[in-house]
Amino acid sequence: MSYTILSASNLEAYLLSLPDVQKFFGSSTRLDIEEIGDGNLNFVFLVRAAETPSQALIVKQAVPYLRCVGESYPLSKERMTYEIRSLEHFATLTSHIPRIYYSDEAMSVIVMEYLGKHRIMRQGMIAGTLYPKVAAHLGDFLAHCLFKTSTLYLKSSEHRHLVAQFIGNGELCKLTEDFVFTAPFMKHETNADLPELADLAEEMAQDLSLKANILALKQLFMNRSDALIHGDLHTGSVMLNQEETYIIDSEFAFMGPMGFDIGTLLANLLMSWVAHGAHQNYAYQAWILTTIEDFWQHFSSTFRSLWNAVDHSALFEKGFAAPQLLHVYQETYMCQLLQESIGFAGCEILRRQFGIAGVEDIRGIDNATVRERANRHAVALGRSFVNHYLHVKSSADMLALIKESHAR
Amino acid sequence: MSYTILSASNLEAYLLSLPDVQKFFGSSTRLDIEEIGDGNLNFVFLVRAAETPSQALIVKQAVPYLRCVGESYPLSKERMTYEIRSLEHFATLTSHIPRIYYSDEAMSVIVMEYLGKHRIMRQGMIAGTLYPKVAAHLGDFLAHCLFKTSTLYLKSSEHRHLVAQFIGNGELCKLTEDFVFTAPFMKHETNADLPELADLAEEMAQDLSLKANILALKQLFMNRSDALIHGDLHTGSVMLNQEETYIIDSEFAFMGPMGFDIGTLLANLLMSWVAHGAHQNYAYQAWILTTIEDFWQHFSSTFRSLWNAVDHSALFEKGFAAPQLLHVYQETYMCQLLQESIGFAGCEILRRQFGIAGVEDIRGIDNATVRERANRHAVALGRSFVNHYLHVKSSADMLALIKESHAR
Repeated sequence: MSYTILSASNLEAYLLSLPDVQKFFGSSTRLDIEEIGDGNLNFVFLVRAAETPSQALIVKQAVPYLRCVGESYPLSKERMTYEIRSLEHFATLTSHIPRIYYSDEAMSVIVMEYLGKHRIMRQGMIAGTLYPKVAAHLGDFLAHCLFKTSTLYLKSSEHRHLVAQFIGNGELCKLTEDFVFTAPFMKHETNADLPELADLAEEMAQDLSLKANILALKQLFMNRSDALIHGDLHTGSVMLNQEETYIIDSEFAFMGPMGFDIGTLLANLLMSWVAHGAHQNYAYQAWILTTIEDFWQHFSSTFRSLWNAVDHSALFEKGFAAPQLLHVYQETYMCQLLQESIGFAGCEILRRQFGIAGVEDIRGIDNATVRERANRHAVALGRSFVNHYLHVKSSADMLALIKESHAR
Repeated sequence: MSYTILSASNLEAYLLSLPDVQKFFGSSTRLDIEEIGDGNLNFVFLVRAAETPSQALIVKQAVPYLRCVGESYPLSKERMTYEIRSLEHFATLTSHIPRIYYSDEAMSVIVMEYLGKHRIMRQGMIAGTLYPKVAAHLGDFLAHCLFKTSTLYLKSSEHRHLVAQFIGNGELCKLTEDFVFTAPFMKHETNADLPELADLAEEMAQDLSLKANILALKQLFMNRSDALIHGDLHTGSVMLNQEETYIIDSEFAFMGPMGFDIGTLLANLLMSWVAHGAHQNYAYQAWILTTIEDFWQHFSSTFRSLWNAVDHSALFEKGFAAPQLLHVYQETYMCQLLQESIGFAGCEILRRQFGIAGVEDIRGIDNATVRERANRHAVALGRSFVNHYLHVKSSADMLALIKESHAR
């Protein structure tokens, strides 16, 4: 179908024309439709069978402008193409993706499972909820999706095909280049107006080795095609409960550095850790650190197990060397991946303090003193990560950097 | 025009139907055609005006199989697409590309300047010819072509467009992955049968840290899109005389790591250095080392001058930081580029000893003792480069590794 903007008035007829959706709703031919999108980019509809509201689906459509501004800010609707392609690809590799019932790149639309019993992870963490399985789930998700879209697993031609499939997602990559790696570190009209952090902003502006490291990390982001990454894996892209964890909102997906996904996730867990520290919720802080540790252990051991089970890939031809070689190379590889993850995490933490997009965990703190304490602690941690990422040799080193950090 | 295989019988009519070629030959309507291709892949015709043989052009066409084997070894003729695109792109950046009169991707054909007064650099070096300008020319060529196709210069969207334009060249990238980074380092039916090197092959097979470094370099080759690289920049892809230097045969071009081009070039200069050493031609050896040193100095200073002149690029937003930052970052960047170049040079030297494709400089030595001495010296140098590339901090360190190397 050629592109038409969906709305409450035409959505019912559109959905009931799609065999897979019709099948989902069965005999129900009246649908209740509610627009629930609170994001900046897209329209999101919750669609329920009128007679059996527990039968529900989500319909997400991109419009050719930035939703939160309006038609005056054009943004290509093709971003949905990359969300569709990445979610469908991830769904072949992991169970942590909502079920997809229908998608249409030309319509920039995707119809998927409604996660009615799940909550956005950021909100859950702000509320101090414990999620005992999330570390393993996120480790599992990233290990499978990153490993199985890399040259460690795929054939050379398959890896190159993925690069080609996602190379068009430049508009959203450019948003990351600008708003994660650039604007927050200079005077820029889009940055948050935070006079209370002026001394830190000025200090950072003068810190040439910090800025050189940020350039090196931006350069990695623009020039490395390790794996199909989500591209925006913060805690607002995770929906979960005590039992299940799902990843959503992958419109930034492209073939990029693995450490960017790991780093974005770590950074957002750590900003919650910082916020809870400023609130003196030390027990929840301890849970977050344990979760980070468990996440990395689970991720790295799953990643290595998957790797050990492969005897032929683009990188490694069967018979290239004795099995011990793989262990020698894996040590180097995993260490570098951890380092890059920490570097990217540092950029993400810093840009969330100074840049246009803060995190509710910190910017949402009502008490100005507490908020500033959290801001200053986050800046110190972000700087420490960016300055020292190449010296980290193990997750213990990373935890030491975290624990040594404090507001300045 | 849809694809038709060109031959002595239909080439004249084809060429005279092309306005730009017709214009080149002017009033001449009879052409002398000679097939001169000695390569493995393509047909190459030298075409002269019958009455004025000094008016001459080269016509190169890819056929959908490996020429040296025949139709039983299919190889996509689309490789010519990437040669055409890369030569045309390089021609906008440097004067070291032969003039292109016509190209047609569908016909897999390119018509270009005949370099009748130039010689293949490998042949010139085997003959011991001095080329006083080649270091500057090659440094200039690589500095312009690599810098100006990178995120250090281009906009993010322009860089991504180049990736998309060359991502289809996977068949030739795979040849490099297999025949530069893999087969020569394991037991493989395609390798050269050289019983006199069996002890070295066995030693290498057991050298896990060497092999881990080779994997790391192969991983870089497959996952980094720094710049539009030639992809096969050995001394057989350079045509020159005392005054001029031209680069040809870029069918392996793609967006890859800059160090691969620099390393391939260094490796081939060094294999000539090794060969002349085995022949005790010490004066020519000294010229080669000076050429290598001059090349790197010229390349790196040109590259940095180009960089210093840019105030806005995908990487560096105007106002991001004080100008000193660029110098801090450049030091790191150039050091890493030199390291990676040396690593790639090591792989190239080693694969030219053990793999299917030797270099005439060494494999062409008639005296078996001298040839073996050269082989063994090359292996020692290649191993030293691969084992130590990450420790090199300057071109002086590289020269020390070269001078310390000797046959084992």
